[in-house]
Amino acid sequence: MTPAIPVETANVSAMLARGRTLVTPVLRAAIDRLAPPMNTVAAYHFGWIDVEGNPSASDGGKAVRPALALLSAEAAGAAPEVGLPGAVAVELVHNFSLLHDDLMDGDEQRRHRDTVWKVHGPDQAVLVGDALFALANEILLELGTVDAGRATRRLATATRRLIDGQAQDIAYEQRGRVNVQECLDMEGNKTGALLACSVSIGAVLGGVDDRTADTLETYGYHLGLAFQAVDDLLGIWGDPLATGKRPWSDLRQRKKSLPVVAALAAGGPASERLAHILAADANRDEKTDDIADFDEEEFASRAALIEEAGGREWTSQEARRQHATAIEALHDVDMPAAVRAQLVALADFVVVREG
Amino acid sequence: MTPAIPVETANVSAMLARGRTLVTPVLRAAIDRLAPPMNTVAAYHFGWIDVEGNPSASDGGKAVRPALALLSAEAAGAAPEVGLPGAVAVELVHNFSLLHDDLMDGDEQRRHRDTVWKVHGPDQAVLVGDALFALANEILLELGTVDAGRATRRLATATRRLIDGQAQDIAYEQRGRVNVQECLDMEGNKTGALLACSVSIGAVLGGVDDRTADTLETYGYHLGLAFQAVDDLLGIWGDPLATGKRPWSDLRQRKKSLPVVAALAAGGPASERLAHILAADANRDEKTDDIADFDEEEFASRAALIEEAGGREWTSQEARRQHATAIEALHDVDMPAAVRAQLVALADFVVVREG
Repeated sequence: MTPAIPVETANVSAMLARGRTLVTPVLRAAIDRLAPPMNTVAAYHFGWIDVEGNPSASDGGKAVRPALALLSAEAAGAAPEVGLPGAVAVELVHNFSLLHDDLMDGDEQRRHRDTVWKVHGPDQAVLVGDALFALANEILLELGTVDAGRATRRLATATRRLIDGQAQDIAYEQRGRVNVQECLDMEGNKTGALLACSVSIGAVLGGVDDRTADTLETYGYHLGLAFQAVDDLLGIWGDPLATGKRPWSDLRQRKKSLPVVAALAAGGPASERLAHILAADANRDEKTDDIADFDEEEFASRAALIEEAGGREWTSQEARRQHATAIEALHDVDMPAAVRAQLVALADFVVVREG
Repeated sequence: MTPAIPVETANVSAMLARGRTLVTPVLRAAIDRLAPPMNTVAAYHFGWIDVEGNPSASDGGKAVRPALALLSAEAAGAAPEVGLPGAVAVELVHNFSLLHDDLMDGDEQRRHRDTVWKVHGPDQAVLVGDALFALANEILLELGTVDAGRATRRLATATRRLIDGQAQDIAYEQRGRVNVQECLDMEGNKTGALLACSVSIGAVLGGVDDRTADTLETYGYHLGLAFQAVDDLLGIWGDPLATGKRPWSDLRQRKKSLPVVAALAAGGPASERLAHILAADANRDEKTDDIADFDEEEFASRAALIEEAGGREWTSQEARRQHATAIEALHDVDMPAAVRAQLVALADFVVVREG
């Protein structure tokens, strides 16, 4: 995919690194509040300790959301530190959802390590997830300002939408057909809502009005949809070395992701052939006749059908459309030029990344 | 147990009924915001529909917390309606914890009906619980006032303590010995913190200062500990017809509740005999050699040992001590005499109830 604007990768890396540097100590202090063994379980989840409890420097993820929250404060003309409680809060909510989603989805690996429910059991995954959500609210509201209340309200709404998205995802997996709009709605809730909140939360803490915050959220929401469209492409055609996932991982998991849904909606011979294959899958018993271990050629041929039906191209274009909509929203907000450049660079990074 | 002050049962019933009447429509409107099927699952949980989805008028529980939140507003000299968003929020958080705790504890029945995880599966129990917690914050913060932020902060802290209490409860079940102080701490977190918040939340929405709110929380916290001490007595010696539980239910579930912990701490022959029996239980494999279905005589004899060691009497006295501490805290707050009388009547009700 060719982005409209030259990517400044160094810029994005520095921005993400700054986010991690500022947020990690505050996050650690927050986790220390939890009753044992939840503090230890959370430290494992964040990659600060290994399974045996020894210090570790695992990959804690890209931490896009906290980096955005700091930039968000700067967009309002405030110091990045003004956005810090918001950065910690969105990272806590994001990780609350990872803990619960991994459990519900039965995912055994995250960031190349066993997931919390796999290591510490389902109860700890539920409990620690709950605790991170409570902490997110506490940390924001301890500021005691009207703006903190406004920020927390946005976070609560984003979190409810995140949960709505996961509920839709689960419901759609159990259903025969899902249309493109339903898929976009689900991805907007699951990925767009919290990214949107990350882009407004620092600015709200910096005192911007609701209209400006809403416009910043428009950027973040479409950034999230662009991110998710690329994720859906990588989930089928991504390089396993870059994504850290099995080849064709979304196809193995029967995900009704955008390329699949768009291919099914396209009509034509390849689309009909795909529909036929997926209908046959639906009649299999997931436990006794799992498609996940079908051979490579079977998935390669399915991926080719999706591409032939136009699902790959449509999703690429969708990523570009969402990218453009995100950038456009930025025109409506006054902000320092450097902050605008960073937000643009981030949007570009999101659509060209390979993992 | 003889309460210090005559009970006005009619008063308490009317107060609880008022809470349910005011809160239910707002709660239903809140639940309507959730994506399907979570709205239906939540409606089942609250007893508004049955398993088939038909309207039902099941027992939705006593709803002590919302009733307290309305009274709390009146304690601040405000109209009860001022406390309504707080009443809905504490009820949502309480039900969030029930959904998750029933799943973690493997409890199959609540209020004489199958629990949500049993009917709709574990994923829905996790998701709908999460959604209720998010809704609680949303509903409070939509008020958009500084006091709403203060109220939500107290709710977030109470919720984190609630989660801490559940984590302690699980950890203690897996441990050999638990001392009386650890048990009281756990019960304070699990029951005291949210009841405390229920008693302050309406007053905070009504504009009282933090010191007054803290004093109201002291009443609520000790009310919670009194409630829990009585619950622990009923869990062993309660009348199954009144409690809706199996006879000796806490003993069947190996709960390290106050009477057991106090009996173990007392020393003497009965205490030692009890310690010996519980140590033998701990060596059984819970799955293949479950104590829950031991015959009645076995549990009757264990209950007699606990009583002989002084665990029953100590817990009765503890309920009275906590009741007295709760009432005492009320002296430090100026409030209308009728509100004070209601809070006293509720404390009395809590310690004399039989189910």
